Amino acid sequence: MQACVLTKTGLRFNADYPSPVPQDGMVPVRVITAGVCETDLQLIKGYMGFQGVLGHEFVGVAEGGPFAGQRVVGEINCACHACDLCRDGMENHCPNRTVIGILNHDGAFAETVVVPHENLHLVPDNVSDDEAVFTEPLAAAFQIPAQLNLDAFDRAIVLGDGRLGNLCAQVISHAGCHVTVVGKHAAKLAVLDELGINTAHLSDLVIDRTADLVVDCTGSPTGLETACRLVRPRGTIVLKTTVAGDTGPALAPVVIDEITVVGSRCGPFDVALKALKQGDVHVAPLISARFPLKEIDKAINAARTAPNLKVLLDISSS
Amino acid sequence: MQACVLTKTGLRFNADYPSPVPQDGMVPVRVITAGVCETDLQLIKGYMGFQGVLGHEFVGVAEGGPFAGQRVVGEINCACHACDLCRDGMENHCPNRTVIGILNHDGAFAETVVVPHENLHLVPDNVSDDEAVFTEPLAAAFQIPAQLNLDAFDRAIVLGDGRLGNLCAQVISHAGCHVTVVGKHAAKLAVLDELGINTAHLSDLVIDRTADLVVDCTGSPTGLETACRLVRPRGTIVLKTTVAGDTGPALAPVVIDEITVVGSRCGPFDVALKALKQGDVHVAPLISARFPLKEIDKAINAARTAPNLKVLLDISSS
Repeated sequence: MQACVLTKTGLRFNADYPSPVPQDGMVPVRVITAGVCETDLQLIKGYMGFQGVLGHEFVGVAEGGPFAGQRVVGEINCACHACDLCRDGMENHCPNRTVIGILNHDGAFAETVVVPHENLHLVPDNVSDDEAVFTEPLAAAFQIPAQLNLDAFDRAIVLGDGRLGNLCAQVISHAGCHVTVVGKHAAKLAVLDELGINTAHLSDLVIDRTADLVVDCTGSPTGLETACRLVRPRGTIVLKTTVAGDTGPALAPVVIDEITVVGSRCGPFDVALKALKQGDVHVAPLISARFPLKEIDKAINAARTAPNLKVLLDISSS
Repeated sequence: MQACVLTKTGLRFNADYPSPVPQDGMVPVRVITAGVCETDLQLIKGYMGFQGVLGHEFVGVAEGGPFAGQRVVGEINCACHACDLCRDGMENHCPNRTVIGILNHDGAFAETVVVPHENLHLVPDNVSDDEAVFTEPLAAAFQIPAQLNLDAFDRAIVLGDGRLGNLCAQVISHAGCHVTVVGKHAAKLAVLDELGINTAHLSDLVIDRTADLVVDCTGSPTGLETACRLVRPRGTIVLKTTVAGDTGPALAPVVIDEITVVGSRCGPFDVALKALKQGDVHVAPLISARFPLKEIDKAINAARTAPNLKVLLDISSS
């Protein structure tokens, strides 16, 4: 099959990669469309040391299991369902897990990806393929209200105007918070303006330490430092992006101002699909470019280029 | 009056420092006993750039106000009571505050310290002077249950066997958590063993990532890193100590494991005094040495010396 495979020498299109052989409980999914995520760009740089087929944002058609022949999306953490954490309902933190396209599990930049049947979710009829491919990052944004009662927060700032920042801002705004997105890219901020979300350019930002909630989606080592200067004493900072490197910012402000810092990762697919079905979140404006699978180099370059938000890979027709 | 004064050249005993002149709403307190805190050692090294009379842990006799002639302890944050944060009940975070012995306010290593009348708390009759001097650090330990519902935590680890680690462990243990204190000093761990609290030497520690709660009282740049390796996914880390320096640990584990990090500082004096009155917490075993005010150099050296826990300064008789 066609697949984009990451090895130590980089990411390459392969027209003749072996098709996966599903184990028990695994369902082959014929991929329609996949999305390029910031994590993919990090993995290409060597993060996690992953080798194999890249890609973890996808919509496809199940070729087996209870949803055979229907459009599905798939949760990316494939848990053992036997360890203490799985038994406590924390399958996403299973120490034995594989992660599709990220850890010991071939991903979705391919004609077929194999997914545990319990990870699959049916895509509602009124959700397009292009919208459905946003389920995974949108679920990550919905992890914020899954972890925090957003009713307790009024003024929120999202740091970062990229893919994830945009989705987090929409989710938090829909939950009733007064959100301002702070970014560095006029074109990306304009997309948010169009969605009715307040924006500010980083260079124009007034530091007044009045935000109840700051969500760091910058992927930058300075993100938390900036967040500490914006959040009020006893406020909350959510970290949505990991930062490479052996050191981080000084944490004295976290103690002095009694800030709560919440790490936040993957989220609930059912909630994200419901939001897409109801039109609570608008993802189509985020699509900046699309490429066939064999043009993966162009797609990755586009995903790395500043004004672009989401870059899609068209793999098969629905 | 006699006072120990910190200047750019260091901390010196001064037999003839000007007695403070109380402003409106301020009460002079004749200091009986003061305690040396880790923060004092940091301030001597230049932290905060503080200059003036050192000392913020004390018990004394009020020389005015509603408690005139009675034994009192004093909260250290002196708020403006007019700003938004004060109006929101966050006086300890008032941006206009002074902090006794730490920020723009002469402290308690002196015959007299001046305290806002609303900061004073009466010491119960059955609480000794030596016990009362622990009110401030014990209140800091009680800030943990003020911020977190400890019923939600079973297995807790306190990192650090020093003064604050000991008090935090006692508070968390009394709240019903199963606590283990991890430290590097056999003598300090022995004090905890005597108090019936489980201990482990850092070098013997088994890293199994099962703690629901980890409290970092190490004051060390590696404290949070160690905490991240001990806490379970979605667990909570409380930071009780600040670490000097421009950088901190990498925070990727906080995101990946969805850890909540809570900064925690000063706490409720009323709760601490009640615990001392009821004997819920035992502070006398922490007293390692005591010196008269004029032997401040010896006192500071003793506070810096590993097996010692709390060092007291005897200033006047009650």
